[in-house]
Order: sequence, then C-alpha cells, then structure tokens
Amino acid sequence: MKLEVVFSPASLGPHEAAGRAVFVIDVLRATTTICAALHHGARAVIPVSTAEEATRLSQTLGPEDVVLAGERGSERIPGFALGNSPLEMVESAVRGKTLVMTTTNGTRALLGTQGASEVYVAAGVNLAVAGARAFELGRERKDVLILCAGRESRFALEDAYAAGRLVFEALGRRRTRKGLNDEAIVAVDLVRRYGRGWERPFALSAAGRQLTRLGMANDVAEAGRENAYPVLPLFHERRITAVPGAASVTLP
Amino acid sequence: MKLEVVFSPASLGPHEAAGRAVFVIDVLRATTTICAALHHGARAVIPVSTAEEATRLSQTLGPEDVVLAGERGSERIPGFALGNSPLEMVESAVRGKTLVMTTTNGTRALLGTQGASEVYVAAGVNLAVAGARAFELGRERKDVLILCAGRESRFALEDAYAAGRLVFEALGRRRTRKGLNDEAIVAVDLVRRYGRGWERPFALSAAGRQLTRLGMANDVAEAGRENAYPVLPLFHERRITAVPGAASVTLP
Repeated sequence: MKLEVVFSPASLGPHEAAGRAVFVIDVLRATTTICAALHHGARAVIPVSTAEEATRLSQTLGPEDVVLAGERGSERIPGFALGNSPLEMVESAVRGKTLVMTTTNGTRALLGTQGASEVYVAAGVNLAVAGARAFELGRERKDVLILCAGRESRFALEDAYAAGRLVFEALGRRRTRKGLNDEAIVAVDLVRRYGRGWERPFALSAAGRQLTRLGMANDVAEAGRENAYPVLPLFHERRITAVPGAASVTLP
Repeated sequence: MKLEVVFSPASLGPHEAAGRAVFVIDVLRATTTICAALHHGARAVIPVSTAEEATRLSQTLGPEDVVLAGERGSERIPGFALGNSPLEMVESAVRGKTLVMTTTNGTRALLGTQGASEVYVAAGVNLAVAGARAFELGRERKDVLILCAGRESRFALEDAYAAGRLVFEALGRRRTRKGLNDEAIVAVDLVRRYGRGWERPFALSAAGRQLTRLGMANDVAEAGRENAYPVLPLFHERRITAVPGAASVTLP
C-alpha cells in the first residue's frame, strides 16, 4: 500500500490520481471553508474553475437554493454572497444551500483528481475524521494520495504540514516509512519539527502571512482549530457532500 | 534580497528565473557529474534535451573533441561513451573534451532557466564554492533562486536537502528567515533534521534507493563527498564551464 503526498497539482502526472483514494488539502483556506460549510448544514459544495462558470451554474441550478462563494487574491469576488472565509459559513448563510465555489488554488487541486477512486477534502478542522478514513483505506490495502493545493502551482508550507499530520493519522500506530514517497517523508519531518500546533507553520508560511497582512488573521486562527468541523466531505460527480455518519464513527 | 528555493522545474513560472541568479541542483546525479567532469579538465559541458539532439550536436562540433554522456532510467544511453556517473568522469575520459550531455531531470532544470542573470551548477561536491558565490550575491543584494531538478517534475528529498545546505552557506552568519520562501524554510528544516551528513537523506530518498538497487551505490557515496570537486560551473550561452579561480577564492 502506497501513502504518497504531492506538494502541488502542477507536479501531478496526468493519470497519477487514477484508481487511488485522494485527499485534497488547501488548509488556508478552501478545504477549511468547505468543512465549515458542510458542518453548518450546506447541502453541497460545487467547485468550479472560474467566476463566470459559477455564475452560469447558479443560473442553471436556480438561484434560490444556490449561494456563490469564492475569492481571487484572497478577497471575495465582486457580486458573490460569500468569500472564502470559514467564518462566513454560518448556519444562517449556508443551511440547506448548495454553494458554488471558486478559489485560486483549492479548486484547481480538486478538479485535478480525475480518475481517482474516491476524493475527500481534508484540513485541520476535520483532521481526525479524514485521518480515520485514510487509516481505514490503509487497512484495506488501498493506495492513498494526499494532494496539496499549494500556492499558484508551488509548494505551500501549511499544506505540507497538514499533509504530514494526515500521514501520521493514516499510519496510526504503524511507524514505518514503507510506501511513503519523498514528499510524505518530508511532510512527516515537518510535523516532527513544528509539533502538533498549527500556529508555527501558519505564522511562517507565505499564505498565513499574507492573510494576516490583509486583516484575515481570524481565518488563520480558525483553520488551526483542530477538529472543529468533524465532517468527511466527499467529492463525487462534481459535488462535495458530507459522508453521513463519518463524524460519529471517529469521535466517540 | 530574496533567497528562494523551487522544488521542481514544473513549479517554476515562465518568467520566474528572469533577472535572478540561479543555482541548479540535481545532486543524484547530473550536477554532481558536471562538477566531476569540469574538475577533471573537461573544457565544457553542453546540456541538451534529447539523445538525438546530442548526437546531432556532436556531429556539428566535430567528433574528435566531443564526448557524448547521458542516461535514461539511470542507465547509459546506448551508443554514448559515458553515462551520468561522476565516477566515469576521470581525467583520461574528459580532459580537454566537450561533453554533450542529456539526463532525465537535471538537463530539464538547466534548460528552464531562460532569462536568468547568471546560472550556476551546484551539488554537495562543490557546496563551499557554490555557497561562497551565493553568499557574495546576497552581499550584492541580488535575488537568488535555487532550482531543484527533482524527479520527473516532482519533489526530490536529496535535492531539497542540498538546497537547504546551500541556503545555509548563502546566509553565512546571518540567521534570518527574511526573504526566504516556504520552500527555503522547509529546506533549512531538512538540514536541521538530517544534520550535515548526506547519507541519511540519500538513503531515504527514492533516487538514492533506486540507484542503490541498480548497483550504483558508489555513485551515491560519491555525491556525498562534500567539496570533493571544488569548481564553480557557470551555464552561459548553452555551455557550462568552470569559472576560473573560483575554487581558490573559497578554499584557502
């Protein structure tokens, strides 16, 4: 069984996700935000590439049940009801709604997983639930790929750290490097270096520093609230929905 | 002054190298091999993309002064005099010769540096000399980009470690994270984790394990002989040549 990490969708070969279970991570902020939305009762999140596509899709689906969400350059897209902040995903805004969402990096990573056997969304806020599923996949001897969204096709420290946390969860009590690729080994090294707190990797990362500079330090803090949104989002047939009962299995 | 690392040419934006001093690292094995060749008297190394291009160029240049070198899948290309092993680059094979060389990853990285103000070749075997130049560039307030060749457009542990070693050399006594990108921070973390010895990162890396499996453990050991080939290879107008006097400046 392979347990591999890829630091950026740009490094993913065209058929590399094929047949594998994939966990997509964009911890600052898209995958954190998706967990928050589903935890607070959103029916589904549909990731799309462009703002135009989001607008078109919302017209097709019928505007009463749809909320547009997304950012460019970390800021809410003009005309969209929501940006890409987990703190915006409160019940009153999202319950029963379908979010059509477009973000700079997270969306690209999600849409780059064609051919995967199953695709989950992971972040710090659902680490234990996502980790439990990854662990289970390992017991079933299935190959797992953890795909970091990164930043504009590059490595992002906070995603690599989150990937390392997920590798630890996936390994459980096994302490082996067997099946890990170079990226997974380094992601684990980052966890050994920074420990179990999200503050340090967030504070050092370019993404964390940029969000803080833009006045979004609360979003960064929210992304570090480990297991605050214990949902398991599954990306299937273009929609992300919460797997029913996934939280209760892992958080007794 | 920026001091940035990029883990793979696939992550490099089209104009990202423009105007910067770039150090290309492919420590297992292309940049190690280039240092060995120049140290042992090769006149120049010309990196090209394909075996066909290498053959064509050697016919143009005149076969008496040219030696073909390169690998595919770590093995010597059929019909080529040399492979991609630093141990092949002995004086009797290379002195006075121009090597036309093609390798899977290192060549791609070198050819991806268009627009850079200057391009150097770095490895463990010329760490001090390359580091001295990087340090000097920092004093001149020039931006430095360390480009890892990686493996088939992906992250490679041994190159990231080597990049971390070069960052340390470039910083000298400065102990600052200012100007470092996420990759540079992680590369430095790897040096803190693995220390000053090349054995551990080589033994853990997919490239190191593959070469050992193929019976090339001696090449891996050679790549870890720090400062064994104290040359500063400069890539300029398609040719890599040793900067005269660079070694004597840094190794008194």
